Amino acid sequence: MLRMSTLLLRTLRDDPADAEVASHKLLIRAGYVRRIAAGIYSWLPLGYRTYRKIENIIRQEMDAAGFQEVHFPALLPKDPYEATNRWAEYGPDLFRLQDRKKNDFLLGPTHEEMFTLMVKGEFSSYKDLPLSIYQIQTKYRDEPRPRSGIIRGREFVMKDSYSFDIDDAGLEVSYNQHRQAYIKTFDRLGLKYNIVSAMSGAMGGSKSEEFLAPCPTGEDTYVLCNGCGYAANVEAMVTKVSTYKGEKVGAIEELDTPNTPTIDSLVELFNSKYSANISAADTLKNVLLMADEKPISVLVPGDREVDLKRLGANLVGVKDLRLFEDADFAKYPKLVKGYVGPQDAKAFGLKLYADPRVIEGSHWVTGANKRDKHAKNVTCGRDFVVEQYVEAAEVKAGDACPKCAKPVVIDRAIEIGHIFQLGRKYAQSLDLTVLDKAGKPVVVTMGSYGIGVSRAVAAIAEQSYDELGLCWPSEIAPADVHIVATGKEDQPFDVAEQIAKDLEAKGLEVLLDDRRDASAGVKFKDAELIGIPKIIIVGKSLVDGKVEIRDRKSSAKHEVAVADVVKNILN
Amino acid sequence: MLRMSTLLLRTLRDDPADAEVASHKLLIRAGYVRRIAAGIYSWLPLGYRTYRKIENIIRQEMDAAGFQEVHFPALLPKDPYEATNRWAEYGPDLFRLQDRKKNDFLLGPTHEEMFTLMVKGEFSSYKDLPLSIYQIQTKYRDEPRPRSGIIRGREFVMKDSYSFDIDDAGLEVSYNQHRQAYIKTFDRLGLKYNIVSAMSGAMGGSKSEEFLAPCPTGEDTYVLCNGCGYAANVEAMVTKVSTYKGEKVGAIEELDTPNTPTIDSLVELFNSKYSANISAADTLKNVLLMADEKPISVLVPGDREVDLKRLGANLVGVKDLRLFEDADFAKYPKLVKGYVGPQDAKAFGLKLYADPRVIEGSHWVTGANKRDKHAKNVTCGRDFVVEQYVEAAEVKAGDACPKCAKPVVIDRAIEIGHIFQLGRKYAQSLDLTVLDKAGKPVVVTMGSYGIGVSRAVAAIAEQSYDELGLCWPSEIAPADVHIVATGKEDQPFDVAEQIAKDLEAKGLEVLLDDRRDASAGVKFKDAELIGIPKIIIVGKSLVDGKVEIRDRKSSAKHEVAVADVVKNILN
Repeated sequence: MLRMSTLLLRTLRDDPADAEVASHKLLIRAGYVRRIAAGIYSWLPLGYRTYRKIENIIRQEMDAAGFQEVHFPALLPKDPYEATNRWAEYGPDLFRLQDRKKNDFLLGPTHEEMFTLMVKGEFSSYKDLPLSIYQIQTKYRDEPRPRSGIIRGREFVMKDSYSFDIDDAGLEVSYNQHRQAYIKTFDRLGLKYNIVSAMSGAMGGSKSEEFLAPCPTGEDTYVLCNGCGYAANVEAMVTKVSTYKGEKVGAIEELDTPNTPTIDSLVELFNSKYSANISAADTLKNVLLMADEKPISVLVPGDREVDLKRLGANLVGVKDLRLFEDADFAKYPKLVKGYVGPQDAKAFGLKLYADPRVIEGSHWVTGANKRDKHAKNVTCGRDFVVEQYVEAAEVKAGDACPKCAKPVVIDRAIEIGHIFQLGRKYAQSLDLTVLDKAGKPVVVTMGSYGIGVSRAVAAIAEQSYDELGLCWPSEIAPADVHIVATGKEDQPFDVAEQIAKDLEAKGLEVLLDDRRDASAGVKFKDAELIGIPKIIIVGKSLVDGKVEIRDRKSSAKHEVAVADVVKNILN
Repeated sequence: MLRMSTLLLRTLRDDPADAEVASHKLLIRAGYVRRIAAGIYSWLPLGYRTYRKIENIIRQEMDAAGFQEVHFPALLPKDPYEATNRWAEYGPDLFRLQDRKKNDFLLGPTHEEMFTLMVKGEFSSYKDLPLSIYQIQTKYRDEPRPRSGIIRGREFVMKDSYSFDIDDAGLEVSYNQHRQAYIKTFDRLGLKYNIVSAMSGAMGGSKSEEFLAPCPTGEDTYVLCNGCGYAANVEAMVTKVSTYKGEKVGAIEELDTPNTPTIDSLVELFNSKYSANISAADTLKNVLLMADEKPISVLVPGDREVDLKRLGANLVGVKDLRLFEDADFAKYPKLVKGYVGPQDAKAFGLKLYADPRVIEGSHWVTGANKRDKHAKNVTCGRDFVVEQYVEAAEVKAGDACPKCAKPVVIDRAIEIGHIFQLGRKYAQSLDLTVLDKAGKPVVVTMGSYGIGVSRAVAAIAEQSYDELGLCWPSEIAPADVHIVATGKEDQPFDVAEQIAKDLEAKGLEVLLDDRRDASAGVKFKDAELIGIPKIIIVGKSLVDGKVEIRDRKSSAKHEVAVADVVKNILN
């Protein structure tokens, strides 16, 4: 039994100064976690109970799916991460250190390398596969901006699984097993979530989905079609395109357009000076970037910005992407800043990418590659040739769903899980092969699957609070029942104690507020803040032999005879 | 159900090259752990199951004792460890690193500072105490020589508890609560252990005991009296002394003793040249050391060496202790190397310590402080005055028990737990005070209590193996029953499968060896190596409707009708 009189807990009435999101505020105020350093938190008793319940549910579901639990250290040698080049790729996100002999180590941000090597060390035949193994383990990432409390920390707990298969069909099966196990897990955790298509290009794999818990302050933005259920994160959203059905236009005309630094000013000048009737969507932006230090131009309609994160995720193979700077313009003097058009891209040495909306036959107002001049009638396929289409433009609410063409909505969420067909990248780098039936070595194909365990505490909190405090789903609340004894006499405390014992005898977990020096008001406020699903108040109604039972979430309350409390709570 | 056909496990027939102790060899060979780097291991499925059972037992016993579970990060900021000076004191044993902003961090080797600050952050009144809180958490120490597999690793899991009391009497109660909880825990883990007095001087506390699991290859040496049960680690062993009852002797005589570099050569020369009849025990060694760069001399009888670890543990307040080097003799030219005696210590500026055997009135053959000369009749109290007695001499089997005077034995063991009255050191450094009844701030007194969780896996293995492999106690075995199906037909496999299901229905955990391509001999060897307490063999005896049940530890075997297996195992 937990007792408020002895529990290591002090609730706070005020929000902590550094907290912006609800879960962060409430988990601090209700005494679940405490900040140790930026993105590094400790757990107080109530918080750790909730954390452990989540961990146990995840473990149970992984075990039930037949995945085997293993465990790796967090302190890892550099070598395996050099073999896959991630020692370099991670850059400043990796915590690095040396031991007393000056050997290089890292604090593992994720364990693909280690799992690959573990399987390589034990298994050697196709008969050993498929295999799915997992761990629940502490990970480290030196986030540039740790924030939102335990949602984006620098030390956090992940459940990470990896599947090993001999072929793509096997990987598909393993992937779906994990998908099912994740659905069961998140359902048990009481989370609302969407399964969202995600990009996998950057990591070299093929198929990837994210489990996103909708939440207005979430860091992840995703697209949802309320018509057909299509969901994708913004990077993975596919633009709905059709073939060009408009009229053909005449040859390019170049027009004077001085002082048009923005699309709006260009449109205004065009419409006023040349009696045109164009909108921003009729203009074509030429966004110049350096992709691994080679110049590229990305064409997007003038009413859209380039979404650099989306572009980066879709430009497979490009590691370093940045917008043109003045120094770059200096190197390519033919590119007239503010007046670039795609007509001469080849001559300029620019690789020409375009958003899928820039379809064959469409014509645009765009730069004339001359100072103070724009061109009209610049037609795709005739006046310029797109080398490669790429999803580059920002996604907007109301864009057409690629599946059913209905307008999509844009929502925010917290990523709580990610499943991912890694493919052969790690097995290849680390030489994980098994012998097939014919005795021939085959590179193993892998999947990787993650759940943010500590983050789930906050994600659940984000979906289950009100203005009074937390409202935990019953499976993960730090206790099942919160009993509040009030008054100055012994009787309510004695009765509360007996009810607590009776509930415990039935296997329920009880937090008993047995404080003698706290007022009833303080106790009620604490109970509401802490958020245990059922609250029993033992006080005034005792004169009638009754106690009050409150449901934390619905606020419904009713009185019950003391003798019927246990039965009532169990129902 | 675990199945050998799919379990991530390959047993090894040969001992790993780097393994010296039995647990290390067997945990590798039986596929429980794998080495990642020096002192850093990963857990395979069987190993992690055993580890988790131990962790659960420890958690249950801590909870049952009313201690509250919290959890700290491993990645910790430097500040609190600077406040207690441990950032410097730990030296190269501490893993240190910087984050991307060049802030200093460490990987926590132990969490006294953090627990102290946690309580300081929440509590402020004597009414909040006593409090005992604990965590089960991964710790890091950059051991100069990691060894014995998971016994002395660089990343390992500890259960560490801390108690907080308002006064010494409270600390005594908290200490005893932990002592009792530890006894229950280690009893449940099936460990044989001794509770041994330990030194606490170096850490600034008052009382300390270690839980040592006897094991011939253990790193810890301790003293045990089979007469009265007295047990102490070597550092804490107290020398039994009496008052001097021998004769008085005449004045000091100085004698020529050239070429006597050792005690043996001195004794031989003395006895032959001067017709004496002395033994090494009649001579007095003057061991010169630098204690925090001040010269000291430690007197011990010539038949004993100085035990530097023991001396260091008993020289309270001395941080840096080392033997005299030639450079030191050069600085103190009056000290004649090989011929130092205590007679002129004061004149030489030496602080004079002595082993308790150098009692008032005893007389010795010792150096004459002149080249090639020794002195006899040098009498303690008359010719020299001991400034401070200190436990400095090596402890030997047969030394007198300080309690009952019977000869003690010396045994080796693995430290599995440590309980320790820390006192006010950390509370003082970090300013943890509470208001007492009178409203006056009082510094809190603390205890610290540790169990090596990952180490316990190895300690239990060290106490429960035979020439065939591991023999786990039932509470921590990776499964309750290991079923081996043998033969080429389907029948034994079908029967084994059914038995496994029946046992699982009764709540038992089963490892089923369902491999079709492994011989019966290989399967038996694996079962013996893995060490699950009960082995059921489903094979030849099936013609009589029977299976064989083996007890792994006793090797007792008997046949049972298939229908009676479950009943038999449950009994």
